[in-house]
Amino acid sequence: MDELHGYYLEDLSVGMTDVFSKTVSEADIVMFAGISGDTNPVHLSQLFAEGTIFKERIAHGMLSASFISTVLGTRLPGPGCIYLSQSLKFRAPVKTGDTVLARATIKDINHDKKRITLETVCVVGNTVVIEGEATLLVSQRAATAQAAE
Amino acid sequence: MDELHGYYLEDLSVGMTDVFSKTVSEADIVMFAGISGDTNPVHLSQLFAEGTIFKERIAHGMLSASFISTVLGTRLPGPGCIYLSQSLKFRAPVKTGDTVLARATIKDINHDKKRITLETVCVVGNTVVIEGEATLLVSQRAATAQAAE
Amino acid sequence: MDELHGYYLEDLSVGMTDVFSKTVSEADIVMFAGISGDTNPVHLSQLFAEGTIFKERIAHGMLSASFISTVLGTRLPGPGCIYLSQSLKFRAPVKTGDTVLARATIKDINHDKKRITLETVCVVGNTVVIEGEATLLVSQRAATAQAAE
Amino acid sequence: MDELHGYYLEDLSVGMTDVFSKTVSEADIVMFAGISGDTNPVHLSQLFAEGTIFKERIAHGMLSASFISTVLGTRLPGPGCIYLSQSLKFRAPVKTGDTVLARATIKDINHDKKRITLETVCVVGNTVVIEGEATLLVSQRAATAQAAE
Repeated sequence: MDELHGYYLEDLSVGMTDVFSKTVSEADIVMFAGISGDTNPVHLSQLFAEGTIFKERIAHGMLSASFISTVLGTRLPGPGCIYLSQSLKFRAPVKTGDTVLARATIKDINHDKKRITLETVCVVGNTVVIEGEATLLVSQRAATAQAAE
Repeated sequence: MDELHGYYLEDLSVGMTDVFSKTVSEADIVMFAGISGDTNPVHLSQLFAEGTIFKERIAHGMLSASFISTVLGTRLPGPGCIYLSQSLKFRAPVKTGDTVLARATIKDINHDKKRITLETVCVVGNTVVIEGEATLLVSQRAATAQAAE
Repeated sequence: MDELHGYYLEDLSVGMTDVFSKTVSEADIVMFAGISGDTNPVHLSQLFAEGTIFKERIAHGMLSASFISTVLGTRLPGPGCIYLSQSLKFRAPVKTGDTVLARATIKDINHDKKRITLETVCVVGNTVVIEGEATLLVSQRAATAQAAE
Repeated sequence: MDELHGYYLEDLSVGMTDVFSKTVSEADIVMFAGISGDTNPVHLSQLFAEGTIFKERIAHGMLSASFISTVLGTRLPGPGCIYLSQSLKFRAPVKTGDTVLARATIKDINHDKKRITLETVCVVGNTVVIEGEATLLVSQRAATAQAAE
């Protein structure tokens, strides 16, 4: 199954970056509500949402945050990594029909601890909607080779 | 729509706590993959997952994290709050069939900034799977009353 | 359970035809992405799709193709048949909100091999979106009767 | 959005191969039935399936076939390609809990027509469950650069 594995620690360098992009539909919000149980009416009730500062239904912050996990788990560093932590600052709402671009950029690599730190940001057009930082454990190609001997 | 509104700042005190609990099924993981786009094979392929330290498929970390958002958005403080930030430390994997209990406990209230800080933790049985902290903006009942005059 | 069984070989003749029709929603596309793992941004990201010749998000070709399987497996010849092969030529994109009509028409029956060949086509309005051919194994009523003796 | 684009024609060579792997769960089958409308009882009714040669419920052939589309649309050649055709020979059933490995391998590249042909196969362990061939249109990096002038 090694063909499915993403980058190994040796393959990574500071500054590497990758993205994932998804348009958030009503269907996403409804299904996210079902899976998460987060039925906050600001996501589900137009009537309630109109009475808030958002003026319309907004997507769950964690739905947009999940796109960060998608970049990390499928692109950079990709399958095989272990997610250690994530910080999230919710800067602006995401509304139905918005296309979110999630980007992760490596800012630090700790070879001793096999940990990498990435700057993670989600934007809608030029607006930053989420900012934060992720740390992951990434295995070494060498270690894998030794384990196979 | 005020009946749908959760707690106001005046209603809250340090130590208040609430929970949400959900069993994570294969269906949740499949749908979360579709919504998030996160098709990392550690979530979807038993064969790949067996080759990892987890030995079996695990749920997306952000899926369990979303249960924290559920406590905050539906229980404490509930609808009407604004999610400012969340930190997440992924401590242990969640597997299919596991029942996650997400708990949020108020640890600080800043009346000037109308901000509250909550300790947020997810457990499966006695195992902590996620730890972190949330900050939210909570409106004051008084302000609402004045607006109504 | 024989009441659930579809046509037997003796019931079929060249020229018999049947259809299935479904409107493709955003929810279908999101869930199909989760089930298939196909998160190609031409299906999920309006921004990416706008940069392609399609100019907007399109449904997965295999999602429309699955409607052919629906005609075969539920209508003609229906439950009990065994799907041997399918060819698919993707002629035009299917977009959110499009209603696909899938049609299967028997063009050949091989009684010795108990195989039937069907022409399979999906249209949106007057536009052919998929063309192809299916072959299936269909059991004989007689054989079933003998087995019961 | 070019960061999301997959391989260009110049990047490809005969013999390149890539994979996708997914464990097929009951949830996948139920949801695939809902999306496709294919409610054939061989997929949904244990009682009916027990009376067939499969002896138990099997996954939709098109569900496994969709994993081929996933390799093509997300890995090789990846986003930006246009799916022209697919042939599918269903060789063996896929049952709940089976992990399918879909592989696509480039067997021909036609630079004039910008078309590539891939051998596509799905296996469960050592058993081939689907065999076939895909053709896709892949844009040239050069053409993209010219278009931008």
